[in-house]
Amino acid sequence: MNRRLELLKKKMQENALDTCIITDFYQLKYFIGCEIHTGERLLALVLEKSGEATLFVNALFHAKESKDYKAVYYHDSEDPIALMANTIQGKRVGIDDSWNAGFLLRLMSAYSAEYVRGSFLMAEIRCQKDEEEQRCMIEASRLNDEVMRRIRPYLKVGVTEMEIYDRLITLFKEVSHGPVSFEPIVAFGKNGGDPHHESDDTVLQKGEAIIIDMGCYYNGYCSDMTRTFLQHGNEEIEKIYDIVLKANTEAEKAIRIGMPLKDEDKVARDIITEAGYGPYFTHRLGHGIGIEVHEPYDVSESDEVLVQEGMCFSCEPGIYLPEVGGVRIEDLVIARADGTVILNHYPKEKQYID
Amino acid sequence: MNRRLELLKKKMQENALDTCIITDFYQLKYFIGCEIHTGERLLALVLEKSGEATLFVNALFHAKESKDYKAVYYHDSEDPIALMANTIQGKRVGIDDSWNAGFLLRLMSAYSAEYVRGSFLMAEIRCQKDEEEQRCMIEASRLNDEVMRRIRPYLKVGVTEMEIYDRLITLFKEVSHGPVSFEPIVAFGKNGGDPHHESDDTVLQKGEAIIIDMGCYYNGYCSDMTRTFLQHGNEEIEKIYDIVLKANTEAEKAIRIGMPLKDEDKVARDIITEAGYGPYFTHRLGHGIGIEVHEPYDVSESDEVLVQEGMCFSCEPGIYLPEVGGVRIEDLVIARADGTVILNHYPKEKQYID
Repeated sequence: MNRRLELLKKKMQENALDTCIITDFYQLKYFIGCEIHTGERLLALVLEKSGEATLFVNALFHAKESKDYKAVYYHDSEDPIALMANTIQGKRVGIDDSWNAGFLLRLMSAYSAEYVRGSFLMAEIRCQKDEEEQRCMIEASRLNDEVMRRIRPYLKVGVTEMEIYDRLITLFKEVSHGPVSFEPIVAFGKNGGDPHHESDDTVLQKGEAIIIDMGCYYNGYCSDMTRTFLQHGNEEIEKIYDIVLKANTEAEKAIRIGMPLKDEDKVARDIITEAGYGPYFTHRLGHGIGIEVHEPYDVSESDEVLVQEGMCFSCEPGIYLPEVGGVRIEDLVIARADGTVILNHYPKEKQYID
Repeated sequence: MNRRLELLKKKMQENALDTCIITDFYQLKYFIGCEIHTGERLLALVLEKSGEATLFVNALFHAKESKDYKAVYYHDSEDPIALMANTIQGKRVGIDDSWNAGFLLRLMSAYSAEYVRGSFLMAEIRCQKDEEEQRCMIEASRLNDEVMRRIRPYLKVGVTEMEIYDRLITLFKEVSHGPVSFEPIVAFGKNGGDPHHESDDTVLQKGEAIIIDMGCYYNGYCSDMTRTFLQHGNEEIEKIYDIVLKANTEAEKAIRIGMPLKDEDKVARDIITEAGYGPYFTHRLGHGIGIEVHEPYDVSESDEVLVQEGMCFSCEPGIYLPEVGGVRIEDLVIARADGTVILNHYPKEKQYID
């Protein structure tokens, strides 16, 4: 049994769970190295507190051989839920939050037990990145920095958001040799007032700011960084830039093992609120990241979880003035007892495009 | 209230459902034209049997104004499940199968009711494509035929699967001006023995067959077609080609309104089984398709659903000989009382590449 499954087995004991059902693509990748996409067909690992593990796979797919589990293949004409119901032994069953609720309701009918959320156990393990994982996170962000450096010369009045978007995709192919970890956000001028703006044919005008939020993979680990570039002559945006930068840097400085994540959010939020822009910082300060671009835990006003050794998360304060524009500055960080590691090194001081 | 929601309200009455919770991206798109991606943040339409409808949306996103529902925006610091629990009125609640099981378990704790699967009601409505939807399906398949025509000259000994894959992506950009409806499958020679082979650097050798399974969108509606190209001098593959082609054409001829989908599967399966290849036809005959590339219902040995006016599904028999190769031939069809419409017109007679 591999180390990660051992840790999960221990968490199950601590939380009085008899059985754990792992169904999420990334959980399966993390715990047993299984990376098959089965679409709407059920794929589930049933882990008993004894350590016995069974992987249910549609016969159209092949799971690699492993000492960690026994693979049970089912055909399209069979009911995998019935097979699972015959295998599960526990009375208290933890399920993966992202499982299909239809499968869960079917299993609830087929096998009587107390069903509870189980993903939080896996999150507790996954949030602490080991040395090799930290190395991959650092390298993914180094590649991301490099692409930010290479996109910089393309930022010129007259270019469109989609042109920059397409150029980013090309640069990532050159630099990280793979797909992006999420669709890059490129927002010019007032589009920056919407934190989730989708790139379109908007043309960059004189004086407008540019938000670029982007990421790639290294060895299956994600990067995610935002920078806001400026043009001279836009006083309000320059003013909020200073505030957001202060919120970003102070929040990064404040990180300590053992502090609640909500306190980390508060450091940034207080700075923005005191400057009078509280209502315009409309999202959480950050999110966990690893093999998924969004992983537990949120760095938000309500997250009570404590910062732990090896936790990797984003620090991304922003101010969004609807119909005017916005600023967001985002780095990834790894919390460590020997000092926080900031993964992004692309400059954060005000950068003016030509 | 729009016609689709009216139909759903009627289905709810027929099935004694008080409340329906719609959360799936495509269900929301179909029923209320909502197309926002909210990632891990909850997005849900609560429809009561009275017709009252409330859409719960994170405040970072914007749902378009509509007479069909009231939008309730929540912030990251709020618990949307608590808001939903305060809104739901019914005692028997149908939920979307694809909902996040973690959200469902939270709602089960927050609001006591009988929870049942609800997607089947929506499937009953969505499976019958109206005239405009049929027009879009036909056009999407016409574009797909055109790309099959254009890829044909690139199929030459020495080319790699990835080169054909990349060329397909380029051709779809030219022809359908958008993304593909699923990652194209390109399988050479013995790779064709795995129905879900992922394209790689395999080089096409003399004598090998080529399976291409691909699709695109028109106006949000999907196409999906498979053709197998041959080279001379491969008797076993030629033999199974004849069997698969017969299974495909006979199954298409057999389609009648009112017949169970499993009988449709049986027509093809019997032909393949009688020819001695039953164990090598390892998947269902087909699947529903529309705004999603896989929609209810399966055309499988176990699906009792009857063929209905306006149903669109794939007819894709295949024979897969592990380590040898395979053949699959797939068309989309629309069942109609006035005669089945076959959506693909790219030739199915044996085609030999140069």
